[in-house]
Amino acid sequence: MASAPSDALRRRHDNVRAALTGASLDALVVTSLPNILYLTNFAGSAAIVVLDRERIRFLTDSRYVAAIADTRGKPYECPDLEMTVVAGSYDVRLAEALEPYRAARVGFESAHLSVARYNWLARTLTADGAPNPLAPTEGVVEEARVRKDAYEVSVLREAGHRLSAVASSVYSLVRAGRSERDVAADIDWHLRRAGFQRPAFETIVGSGPHAALPHARPSGRIIGEGDLVVLDFGGVHGSYCVDLTRTVAVGKPSDRARQVHEAVRQAQARAIAAIRPGVSRFDIDAAARSALAEQGMAEAFGHGTGHGLGIEVHEDPRVVQRRPGVDTRHEAVDTGMVFTVEPGAYFPGWGGARIEDDVVVTDQGAELLTMVTNELLEL
Amino acid sequence: MASAPSDALRRRHDNVRAALTGASLDALVVTSLPNILYLTNFAGSAAIVVLDRERIRFLTDSRYVAAIADTRGKPYECPDLEMTVVAGSYDVRLAEALEPYRAARVGFESAHLSVARYNWLARTLTADGAPNPLAPTEGVVEEARVRKDAYEVSVLREAGHRLSAVASSVYSLVRAGRSERDVAADIDWHLRRAGFQRPAFETIVGSGPHAALPHARPSGRIIGEGDLVVLDFGGVHGSYCVDLTRTVAVGKPSDRARQVHEAVRQAQARAIAAIRPGVSRFDIDAAARSALAEQGMAEAFGHGTGHGLGIEVHEDPRVVQRRPGVDTRHEAVDTGMVFTVEPGAYFPGWGGARIEDDVVVTDQGAELLTMVTNELLEL
Repeated sequence: MASAPSDALRRRHDNVRAALTGASLDALVVTSLPNILYLTNFAGSAAIVVLDRERIRFLTDSRYVAAIADTRGKPYECPDLEMTVVAGSYDVRLAEALEPYRAARVGFESAHLSVARYNWLARTLTADGAPNPLAPTEGVVEEARVRKDAYEVSVLREAGHRLSAVASSVYSLVRAGRSERDVAADIDWHLRRAGFQRPAFETIVGSGPHAALPHARPSGRIIGEGDLVVLDFGGVHGSYCVDLTRTVAVGKPSDRARQVHEAVRQAQARAIAAIRPGVSRFDIDAAARSALAEQGMAEAFGHGTGHGLGIEVHEDPRVVQRRPGVDTRHEAVDTGMVFTVEPGAYFPGWGGARIEDDVVVTDQGAELLTMVTNELLEL
Repeated sequence: MASAPSDALRRRHDNVRAALTGASLDALVVTSLPNILYLTNFAGSAAIVVLDRERIRFLTDSRYVAAIADTRGKPYECPDLEMTVVAGSYDVRLAEALEPYRAARVGFESAHLSVARYNWLARTLTADGAPNPLAPTEGVVEEARVRKDAYEVSVLREAGHRLSAVASSVYSLVRAGRSERDVAADIDWHLRRAGFQRPAFETIVGSGPHAALPHARPSGRIIGEGDLVVLDFGGVHGSYCVDLTRTVAVGKPSDRARQVHEAVRQAQARAIAAIRPGVSRFDIDAAARSALAEQGMAEAFGHGTGHGLGIEVHEDPRVVQRRPGVDTRHEAVDTGMVFTVEPGAYFPGWGGARIEDDVVVTDQGAELLTMVTNELLEL
């Protein structure tokens, strides 16, 4: 599996360390697995990292010891990693690992530590009357992750290329008489054969009226003549997620189906055209929304225009409507940001359409990571 | 998709309400999606439930409104559900939904609420100087989930039956010259064709030396003659997870391979024989471990003997070693508990074997949910 080179990891550590210094923290406890992967290349399901000014204390259990040992001396070895093998409770070992920091200020990821674990840890560290060294932080590693580095962009380009190839080959699977579920199973098989580690999320095949449900689970519904079918699938390649949607017509589409599909296509084009460094992500969303509004379909587009992609399939930046209560961090998009552009229009009982591609923001605007026709195909 | 009947949901609500009364709580904020599914049949990716003595306040966003509306009047409708559609921030709407409880005691799931969300919520609810109504709880809904009800056992039986059929059909996929990754893709396709919603976890195909890694990700390694190959796969059916492992030999296995496989088989048989209501889960683990120890393979078995199965693929009860720091709740297994029995023996650099089946505890002992030969097949 692809892994980030050691010098990329070192730059990521340096970025996070600079943020810690800025926040007067001596160390950071990283409990988010995607953040741990970003900092260490570790792709397993259980670990905790304590990053301080000099080293990475890495806690994992016996299942992953051999995999970590295998990276030693490799070009993608995590620098300054010191391993602690956990038998039993991670939290007990974490408390031990924090002993040297009892008189320091240790940040923790408040979005990725439950109240239960935090309470236990704080109680344990203060049992002898010592002050609580733990300080909540928000989005320290995520802040670094939001702009992809050169390694990440190269992996995402390759992933987008593969996903586009999968899209071309799945069209032949969609035909009247097949169930949504069978089509979804075949899409997943194509994803795996294209080298993806796994689907990035549960593949969506929504046909006929089901196309009106943005998150339709593939059902036993048999695809019929005249249906619009939304196909939304993604893959994880080298630990990075890409995501693509096309809406196809089975047989001859109605005029209404053509109009809806074309309106969504125009909305996507307008949003993509709006992307360049410095532009507000709310304005990119508004661009898509305005195109649908001009066709009288404003109400038919209930979700956001896009979401960031990376180690997680939904991450920052969120390309959504400006609304009270919506997080306004990273409002301006910047070079290296990677996200989906996926407007849709949904009409309960009738059906709907969505078109989704992935872009990376460059100095010039948006570079498409996925590329396959978005004309309404009649299958 | 299968859903629990309304009266089963009502009994689950009653159980949770009884626990709330016992803890002097007026309501419970449920943020764990598996717990929400258990209480409401909701299988989407975003919702919050506030369960009080009379009703279920259900917060979700526009993506899921149609799906919830569709359940009205159906035999699996969630009783007493009052819907709140969230546009924007869930936490803002949750704070609003908690207004009626400002003078009450409201439990929250401390293992399923991050420190960041808790802090925001507590700050918001106390901004006007009011006392904080929030009280941490642990495992209230999980406590109900650990013993499966009749509906759940019937779904798990059906799922186990389907998974056993998949096992029978995947043996033909394993042969020298194929890559682990191709075999895994084919296994996943068979899972889908057998009606599973999705694989329950990333399918494991570990061949030759990779069989020594309990969590081997399928790689490009080409399976060779004489390899032991660990096949570990599971599926989600009607929102419930089942999980099965077989270790097969490609071509003629060595004497060592036969010994290791047979030792693991005996360990599994001994653990299953130990299961009956009232027995300690630590003793079930010890039964498996003793069989391996008799063959000098005690050190080769690094993980636990089993884990609970249900809405999650890893839940209580944990059939593990008794060790300091290990959670001792639910020590005695009881009727209706469902878990895996999956001892293994792993020899770094050489390979390994694991055999896994799923059981439900009955008055008589253990009923196998998965059933397919566990002899060492030579493919």
